[in-house]
Amino acid sequence: MDVVTPGDFGRTTLPYCSFVVPGESRRRVGVGVDTDVLDLTTAAATVVPEHADLFADGSLDALLAAGPETWHAIRSALLAWVDDAHTGVVQHHVSPADQVELVLPFTVADYVDFYASEQHATNLGRMFRPDGEALMPNWKHLPIGYHGRSGTIVVSGTPIHRPSGQRRTGQGEIVFGPSVRLDIEAEVGFVVGGASTLGEPVPLADAGTHLFGICLVNDWSARDIQAWEYQPLGPFLGKSFATSVSSWVVPMAALDAVRTHPPDRDVPLLPYLDDDGLEPWGLDLRLEVRLNGEVVSRPPFAGMYWTGAQMLAHMTVNGATVRPGDLFASGTVSGSERDERGSFIELSWNGAEPLTLADGSTHSFLENGDTVAISATAGDLWLGEVSGTIVL
Amino acid sequence: MDVVTPGDFGRTTLPYCSFVVPGESRRRVGVGVDTDVLDLTTAAATVVPEHADLFADGSLDALLAAGPETWHAIRSALLAWVDDAHTGVVQHHVSPADQVELVLPFTVADYVDFYASEQHATNLGRMFRPDGEALMPNWKHLPIGYHGRSGTIVVSGTPIHRPSGQRRTGQGEIVFGPSVRLDIEAEVGFVVGGASTLGEPVPLADAGTHLFGICLVNDWSARDIQAWEYQPLGPFLGKSFATSVSSWVVPMAALDAVRTHPPDRDVPLLPYLDDDGLEPWGLDLRLEVRLNGEVVSRPPFAGMYWTGAQMLAHMTVNGATVRPGDLFASGTVSGSERDERGSFIELSWNGAEPLTLADGSTHSFLENGDTVAISATAGDLWLGEVSGTIVL
Repeated sequence: MDVVTPGDFGRTTLPYCSFVVPGESRRRVGVGVDTDVLDLTTAAATVVPEHADLFADGSLDALLAAGPETWHAIRSALLAWVDDAHTGVVQHHVSPADQVELVLPFTVADYVDFYASEQHATNLGRMFRPDGEALMPNWKHLPIGYHGRSGTIVVSGTPIHRPSGQRRTGQGEIVFGPSVRLDIEAEVGFVVGGASTLGEPVPLADAGTHLFGICLVNDWSARDIQAWEYQPLGPFLGKSFATSVSSWVVPMAALDAVRTHPPDRDVPLLPYLDDDGLEPWGLDLRLEVRLNGEVVSRPPFAGMYWTGAQMLAHMTVNGATVRPGDLFASGTVSGSERDERGSFIELSWNGAEPLTLADGSTHSFLENGDTVAISATAGDLWLGEVSGTIVL
Repeated sequence: MDVVTPGDFGRTTLPYCSFVVPGESRRRVGVGVDTDVLDLTTAAATVVPEHADLFADGSLDALLAAGPETWHAIRSALLAWVDDAHTGVVQHHVSPADQVELVLPFTVADYVDFYASEQHATNLGRMFRPDGEALMPNWKHLPIGYHGRSGTIVVSGTPIHRPSGQRRTGQGEIVFGPSVRLDIEAEVGFVVGGASTLGEPVPLADAGTHLFGICLVNDWSARDIQAWEYQPLGPFLGKSFATSVSSWVVPMAALDAVRTHPPDRDVPLLPYLDDDGLEPWGLDLRLEVRLNGEVVSRPPFAGMYWTGAQMLAHMTVNGATVRPGDLFASGTVSGSERDERGSFIELSWNGAEPLTLADGSTHSFLENGDTVAISATAGDLWLGEVSGTIVL
């Protein structure tokens, strides 16, 4: 495998972003080329003239609405132009990516978070239900998920305010204050394009019609708030204070080489979830979690039990629609090794086994000033990162 | 109390809607006056000239964003004009409300559903956890809630497709098919205006800054799908197929006369939820649930344990923002009497005690072709209704 250079997207991934030039207020759609950003809002008249209007507002919203034929046409045009990007007629539309401000790339419609890693669900089950079965009986029959708060989805780099809330102490007292068990969840998000019709499920075989691309997600979680509130209707304030996403959205088409079959399933799947014989929707991505610059985990995405296509098919099987800008995330990505776990509650085994960094400091949950960055690679491709620093 | 005439809003409530004139495609903002609708998109230049731009797009979106001073200024102007509405210079902007098509009045941002009726939570606890405490330990400490799907919120009158999904049979088999336990939840929704700042809670005392008005909500629920999926992350596909809202949004300011103190609390509240000494945010509304035209329940809203202001304070206490267009609903409104229950699972006691209608038919859950309408009154004021018919 070639060496991955963080921040260098190469010339075939062509991820999308939304950016602002320092000193300006106008948003622009960008495409990542090597370590640069091509300003598609201005270059589109040259590069993809028939679709230039899609980039006028500087967000990905119109592109997401346009649907897969348009996505493919634009990507083909970009691939043809990209070798020319630094020398040709689009050269003056290119800037170093580290000299622009990256903003939230699209208007998030509905946000759903799944729970698709068997290792993560098993780890949490063992910690919270030591006397019961680690996995709930439903877990291998359907991708468990819930709706999150789309209004508090923020772009990578946004400071994360430590949330306050109610928690129950070890003595059973109910107290209020800043969370003392602030955590991350390292996830992959699927960005949805195209609209479906109310009452009409999106079948597994049509997933490609709506799966535009992926981003990286940090589903910040206040474990103490969550533990007290979540029965019987699920996580709420323990999650809703902020969810960070990467600035870059990588098109699904850039990931063809790393599509892979998901793990064997232990329980026969109902037909609407049965992906046997279909194009595989597993993705051989490797995540990397850094705490204050030091790598603490490398969660493997290829081992996820449920694929993005299955999540989409499940999410709509009741007739619910999807809309352009919907975002659904995989849930914490955790592998079977300790250094493959995607949350600190797992890495520190609920605080019982704190992590020790190179400087000798020990860590269980997040302190103010801590910075967490989650990045991903696919083979020798860099896929971006999502980072955030905890502030009071 | 005066007799309420369904469909007649009188001249002081002045609810808002969005409507389309048959044969046209342009949306318009409307105000309910008696049984008519005043077209504010065209009349605003006369009635509230300084705010006419707020109604240009035909939805309530800009009005919700404008904030409480603007809401009050516009309502004052409308109250001054309304006696003139049928005879004065705005007369040609008035149409009978039953001759226009009412559409979804605003773009729903985040949708949250609470669980604020002690009777409802207790009834469900008794049915599902017969050997345990009916109420969870957290229930009287905080308003339990969760995020729902805003993309499938539909306006009153929209047909409701019976959802399909997984359910577990009495024999423990996992099967797939149309829900066989389709239910309603009769609720009141709070429509949010104005934006807050990430990391800054909205205190209880500032609730009026963001609570624009109320609507009626039917949180359609597939009990069989919900029962199988909801552990551990809460309801998902059992709810996300559709949520119906009334066409009309009643401004909070129209409800001053029915504001009332909520019930005494059994558990001391943390300061951020303690409404002792503040203006009361309980609302003495009476809901009415009709199945195929026959009244089956009259749930009293005044008995709700948690108020809309407490829900808002709780929802933001972790620093989460609210946005214009956020909608949060109360959860099922149920009183202590059988004919005050706001769902069929309660009315039929989980199917054990079916309802008998005047025609001799018995009903537990909803059949195809059934129509459910939920309306509300406040004293002698009519507040609108939300209805829907089940289709396959």
